[in-house]
Amino acid sequence: MVKPPTPAQETVDILLDSGLVVTMDADRRVLDPGGVAIRGNAIVAVGPAEEMRARYAAECVVDCRQQVVMPGIINTHTHLPMSILRGLADDLRLDVWLHGYILPVEREFVNPEFCFLGATLACAEMLRGGTTCFADMYYYEEEVAWAAAEAGMRGICGETVMKFPTPDALTYEESLQYVADFVGRWKGHELIVAAPAPHSLYMCTAEILQQTTALAREHDVPQLIHVSETADEVEAWLEQTNMRPTRWLEEMGVLDSKVTAAHCVHVNSEEIHILAERGTGVAHNPTSNLKLASGIAPVAEMLATGVAVGVGTDGAASNNDLNMFEEVRLAALLPKGVTRSPVVVPAQEAVAMATIYGARALHLDHLIGSLEPGKRADIITVSTERLHNLPHYETTGENVYSRLVYTAQASDVHHVLVNGKHMVDEGDLLVLNEAHVLEQARNLARRINKFFLAHEKSILDKLVSIGGLEQQEMFEVQGKGRLRDEEAFRAGLAHPVLRITRHTSRDQYDTYFVFADPGQGRLRYREDNVVGAEDRVYPIYSLTLTGPSKEAVYENSVVLSRSRFTAPADRSLRFYREYFSPERVIEVGKHRERYHIRYQGLDFAVNLDRPLGPPEGEAFVEIKSRTWSQQDALRKAGLIGELLAMFGISPEDVVREEYVDLFAGDEESR
Amino acid sequence: MVKPPTPAQETVDILLDSGLVVTMDADRRVLDPGGVAIRGNAIVAVGPAEEMRARYAAECVVDCRQQVVMPGIINTHTHLPMSILRGLADDLRLDVWLHGYILPVEREFVNPEFCFLGATLACAEMLRGGTTCFADMYYYEEEVAWAAAEAGMRGICGETVMKFPTPDALTYEESLQYVADFVGRWKGHELIVAAPAPHSLYMCTAEILQQTTALAREHDVPQLIHVSETADEVEAWLEQTNMRPTRWLEEMGVLDSKVTAAHCVHVNSEEIHILAERGTGVAHNPTSNLKLASGIAPVAEMLATGVAVGVGTDGAASNNDLNMFEEVRLAALLPKGVTRSPVVVPAQEAVAMATIYGARALHLDHLIGSLEPGKRADIITVSTERLHNLPHYETTGENVYSRLVYTAQASDVHHVLVNGKHMVDEGDLLVLNEAHVLEQARNLARRINKFFLAHEKSILDKLVSIGGLEQQEMFEVQGKGRLRDEEAFRAGLAHPVLRITRHTSRDQYDTYFVFADPGQGRLRYREDNVVGAEDRVYPIYSLTLTGPSKEAVYENSVVLSRSRFTAPADRSLRFYREYFSPERVIEVGKHRERYHIRYQGLDFAVNLDRPLGPPEGEAFVEIKSRTWSQQDALRKAGLIGELLAMFGISPEDVVREEYVDLFAGDEESR
Repeated sequence: MVKPPTPAQETVDILLDSGLVVTMDADRRVLDPGGVAIRGNAIVAVGPAEEMRARYAAECVVDCRQQVVMPGIINTHTHLPMSILRGLADDLRLDVWLHGYILPVEREFVNPEFCFLGATLACAEMLRGGTTCFADMYYYEEEVAWAAAEAGMRGICGETVMKFPTPDALTYEESLQYVADFVGRWKGHELIVAAPAPHSLYMCTAEILQQTTALAREHDVPQLIHVSETADEVEAWLEQTNMRPTRWLEEMGVLDSKVTAAHCVHVNSEEIHILAERGTGVAHNPTSNLKLASGIAPVAEMLATGVAVGVGTDGAASNNDLNMFEEVRLAALLPKGVTRSPVVVPAQEAVAMATIYGARALHLDHLIGSLEPGKRADIITVSTERLHNLPHYETTGENVYSRLVYTAQASDVHHVLVNGKHMVDEGDLLVLNEAHVLEQARNLARRINKFFLAHEKSILDKLVSIGGLEQQEMFEVQGKGRLRDEEAFRAGLAHPVLRITRHTSRDQYDTYFVFADPGQGRLRYREDNVVGAEDRVYPIYSLTLTGPSKEAVYENSVVLSRSRFTAPADRSLRFYREYFSPERVIEVGKHRERYHIRYQGLDFAVNLDRPLGPPEGEAFVEIKSRTWSQQDALRKAGLIGELLAMFGISPEDVVREEYVDLFAGDEESR
Repeated sequence: MVKPPTPAQETVDILLDSGLVVTMDADRRVLDPGGVAIRGNAIVAVGPAEEMRARYAAECVVDCRQQVVMPGIINTHTHLPMSILRGLADDLRLDVWLHGYILPVEREFVNPEFCFLGATLACAEMLRGGTTCFADMYYYEEEVAWAAAEAGMRGICGETVMKFPTPDALTYEESLQYVADFVGRWKGHELIVAAPAPHSLYMCTAEILQQTTALAREHDVPQLIHVSETADEVEAWLEQTNMRPTRWLEEMGVLDSKVTAAHCVHVNSEEIHILAERGTGVAHNPTSNLKLASGIAPVAEMLATGVAVGVGTDGAASNNDLNMFEEVRLAALLPKGVTRSPVVVPAQEAVAMATIYGARALHLDHLIGSLEPGKRADIITVSTERLHNLPHYETTGENVYSRLVYTAQASDVHHVLVNGKHMVDEGDLLVLNEAHVLEQARNLARRINKFFLAHEKSILDKLVSIGGLEQQEMFEVQGKGRLRDEEAFRAGLAHPVLRITRHTSRDQYDTYFVFADPGQGRLRYREDNVVGAEDRVYPIYSLTLTGPSKEAVYENSVVLSRSRFTAPADRSLRFYREYFSPERVIEVGKHRERYHIRYQGLDFAVNLDRPLGPPEGEAFVEIKSRTWSQQDALRKAGLIGELLAMFGISPEDVVREEYVDLFAGDEESR
């Protein structure tokens, strides 16, 4: 199609010819048929097709008939490497998903290779689906930058900074140093903007945010941050600082830098005005916000107030793809359902969110987001002459936007150009070795799957992976009996051969998780309400895994058990129930008077236990002592027999079962 | 691949070999790799791939590696012929969309050919996207039945019955007769169930519903109905009957038949229990409910209560496609966002809604909805080894459902079988002449577009199309002047040469719509608050289009204008504003004392007008008379001159502008 230029013609590199050109410029000019002339990385001219053909002689003429030609789509919030973890686990509560699945896998597998591969996989998917620019937040972000640069995509690469250790930094000082170096190295790059990404208010400190802000301002780069994704997070921040998050960000000077705030699901009108006034960009992630049950962002109000709202997919682990056509459709549909007004966020506005508003949200609207001379040639074409998008109407001037938003699919993307370079040609990906990338991704996923299944199989490993629990080997000698005569017990306690060293009083509520495989042992969640000074109650929550016990029944009816693992339980019972998915849950409550005694030079714990709830009025005496050797256990078993007798427990009242078996039977709870 | 059967083998027609078989049977059995053997229209066996290959010799072996094999998707609510109207108009309020766009086009274009073509177009789109069965409600439903039967699709074809005239029936008796004949003719058809579709409670009468119910019960067919789609509709029904719609349907005996209720967006817990107890199916249409701003149905609660909830696209005019993958994804996502619980409607439940629950909602679960021996062979395969759906995990047993719901696309559908017949083969549509259908659809759309643009161009046509307004040609003679001396006016009125025949008093609030093209004239919405007996106010709403006026200024300063069209305004100002989309809106309010007088044997109206709002204290006298000829107008102009003088209006106080121009200037309102 190369014709020699006539004297009146200018030469250009590429002419996109005879498409329905949707410019998304300030006048929302639409040219049908129209053309776009490209030289190097920039758009030279946009105009009627005939005029463009007359004016420009192009090295390459791309036939855009039956296609919409529009600005490349901008994904304003994502975590590209997480594409590797797509579909690892879904439909779980955020904490279970994060602490039970994502974090353990990230701890084990996230390294530079993981990030490079995941980002490359993501670039391939994004390009095929018409996304030409992204804003990413992850670890080893320099790898993401390299992957995108090699693929030829445009992106803001945000290195995560938080107060906790991350896969690529033990301290936030390390992260800040990484970001500073990273931003410096990529400065002036044609495609990549390296940026700080302080994770969120609750994962950072004021110092971290001050330092990332200073860095962003110094280098004139944006900073990316999660803001007000969940109601809980906002509630907690309000309680802690007496300020809502956006307000706090303004007060702290963070909004003096170019900020892109992801989510903003729970922002009130005052905060929306702050975002508008300060030019803070918002990345709206409708699928992720629904899927993780965070809620629905007030997009209609944000747009009406003048906030630059773009659209994002979030990571593929919570979406589960990087399909911006789905996101844009949802961005148009949700506000209608929520505000009960079908005229809010009309299709044209949704296309703007995907393009020029997205560019504004990323502070890149001087370069991309619309088809205008001088802007970078980030352009896609979408075939709209497919069965699911036919027939066409031209009744209102809005029809073309409606076709793009409500009917077009990511798979209808036909040509993709980034920075003037042809990336997808009639649906074929021209860059990256897709087969190789997929092969690598499959191999890595197989390893992760294997790790996960092994890890999933062991309750103990699951416990270790969330709790940092230390494994202990332990012996314990126990003796227990039904108490029929409390007088005898009191008399025994008062006997001069033993000495009470400490006495505590408490209500203990135990929830046992029982698993299909008894070899997994039994997990106990205990709420221990210790009565302290002035009768104040201090609850203590602990988690104990009793491994499959080896028991030895001694003549004097004392049982020796072994092996348990205890950790403080800093998450809710609900979390543990969903994370461990026990086959059966049994609840047992008791009041416990504990007497630490010394007898025959050894320490014992004597518990007077009264079950809370039926059977009414029963009481048990339980005597325990830790032990470290078979020999010691044998000796203590003998002494416990003596003590039981001293407390008035006759041999026929000795009980061998644990309380959980004794009280619960087959009931779910008591 | 045809091998001769070994003696131990049974012969079958088709063997779907080595796919990941998701049966959706009661045990949610998944076979990987699995196979499905088909003979005639039925599933013979489902089992492990190796076992199936050993047991069955098949005429045709379909390689299903790297594909999920699952039951065909069921679209439980749609209006197939409306695919022709896809994208005609979007992002409008329901009344504007319906009365301003859809109904006028339907009145003009809906006929048997339209319905056959639209249904065929829709069948092609549905088959390509993995939908094998639908429930339709439209007009000329026998054409839809023919189209589906010719395509080879399964469907419940519901002929619409309502109390208003429809494109295919002037009265509901006609519709009922149509349905009775229709149901009788298609009885026992292999693919099609003909059924009554009473539109909704508000569009029907109790008698209609009793008769459709009797018919449905007599022939043991389902009936399809829209229920509680909008909050307004429920509110109005509650007011009218003191019963919520579902409750009313139960009381009226309608739920004694097999009902599929579309939408159920606004149902309370009592109604949900009724739906569950009565086995009433629900068709959930998430996209349409969002797009038309109806709201979000309480799907999580319905499922938890045991209601058979299927998924539907609604018509392509409000969706804008028939993509069930999008609907199922939304059906899984929305309840999470709304209930703030990420664990409700997990992916497996969403797949069930698309298949077995959908079958239950249509009362067809004995035939379809799962892959089980004896059921009809309505089966699809979905390629899940595409970039956007990789890598894969097998961590929880839920991963395959998650891949289908959160990542798979309609364009990933690879094979489709309906009733044992191969319809889509590796993405190629084997039935229907797609190019021909598209060509016809494009041609019809061009005609509709042309009609619409002509219709859209003329404000008058738009007025006629919604109001049944009669066009009138009319002359009016007017004279108007600023009143400076009310005494003189009173004295004039009391003069014996004239006689007051009637006097009225009113406040008039006029809203003028001004259009970019002055040739369109000016539209006035008037709220006329007439003061009647005992000072009661009777508001009258009217709509008046003043055509481009031809004016004649006479010597005695009287103006002759012509041509206007008036109709009662039975919709809201808001409706008209959105429907007519004026360039400018001007509001003018005045208090008007009107004296009907007789002078020189002729009738005149004399108005004493005082603007409401600034300028304060001004008053105008306006004298008008209708006229039917140039000659008459000339004579009356002279008489109006005399009257103005008699009322003390001097020539320099004569005003030629209309109030709207006089008061409003460039302001939007006053």
